[in-house]
Amino acid sequence: MKKRLGPVERLFPMPCALVVGGTLEYADTLAVAWINIVSSTPPTVAMGLRESRNTLDLIRRSGTFTVNIPPASLAAEVDFCGTTPGAKRDKFRATGLTLVPGALTATPLIEQCPFNLECKVTDEVEVGSYRVVIGEIVEAHADTEVLRDEGGDIVEMAALDPLVYIAGAREYWRLGGKVADAYSIGKTIENAE
Amino acid sequence: MKKRLGPVERLFPMPCALVVGGTLEYADTLAVAWINIVSSTPPTVAMGLRESRNTLDLIRRSGTFTVNIPPASLAAEVDFCGTTPGAKRDKFRATGLTLVPGALTATPLIEQCPFNLECKVTDEVEVGSYRVVIGEIVEAHADTEVLRDEGGDIVEMAALDPLVYIAGAREYWRLGGKVADAYSIGKTIENAE
Repeated sequence: MKKRLGPVERLFPMPCALVVGGTLEYADTLAVAWINIVSSTPPTVAMGLRESRNTLDLIRRSGTFTVNIPPASLAAEVDFCGTTPGAKRDKFRATGLTLVPGALTATPLIEQCPFNLECKVTDEVEVGSYRVVIGEIVEAHADTEVLRDEGGDIVEMAALDPLVYIAGAREYWRLGGKVADAYSIGKTIENAE
Repeated sequence: MKKRLGPVERLFPMPCALVVGGTLEYADTLAVAWINIVSSTPPTVAMGLRESRNTLDLIRRSGTFTVNIPPASLAAEVDFCGTTPGAKRDKFRATGLTLVPGALTATPLIEQCPFNLECKVTDEVEVGSYRVVIGEIVEAHADTEVLRDEGGDIVEMAALDPLVYIAGAREYWRLGGKVADAYSIGKTIENAE
């Protein structure tokens, strides 16, 4: 039986990215679960940020940001970055997370996150007291240890072990195992017809 | 060591929702991994759809859509809905998925998905050959079997077992287990300072 819950802002599961704004000289970061890809031509991400965020100010100033995918082992560091106002604290000093230069923008990457995107802001949409920041992905980076083949670009989930955010319950989870191959398992229905 | 991958449209993990457009009389659905919450005031989702999608036409006609979170056990049905052009096939008949009325919009919910959102379109943003559809969540529904407490609104992940999409590798995964409590584990860093 279905029960009505009212208009709750939930969807399962969510990623849990560390978004960085600023430069190597002065950067800030916050944990963003409300982020995803929205286009492949051009490759583009969209994320919802509260208007009051210090990192949003930095993103507007440079027009760039990076998206850094932390492993589940960094749950405490990510939680700290998501719950601490960045204008008041140096989150990098507190957590031990370190920054390394990107390739195509002035905004740095988080070294301890094995997958990183460099983005340039292309649009900002007002939604109530939030801003949807839309950014074109200009470069992606991965630690060679999480790549399936050294020459390829496929990230192996068992190696990346990305942190997952669960809304409502307010929990961090990790991924379990592979269920099926996409663009393939559906053929069992196609063929059964 | 970090390796540059070029501007790939990836982020880990992604949900794997079935988005429905239309009415009980004529509906279509497609699998959407590029979707997430972007605001809580008002509760809002954003998703990236290819301009050519039949479901996008239906969404534009009514100004409404539903987001339905399938369990991992429906991987084949979801894959079929994501890879079959809906203008040519009745995906509901082919998969056995059934529709039930929503509460506040004319667009139905997928009965076999234990969590559902009813949304009203508030904006559409052009991003290359994609459209970012932004919709306010006007109601959420959950099967009572996936709720932590019958009187509450917290969805239990072990019961929901949501399907997860892995970009690049093109795989479906499921969630593993809880890593930590959010808004809590970060205090270990706060207190260590």
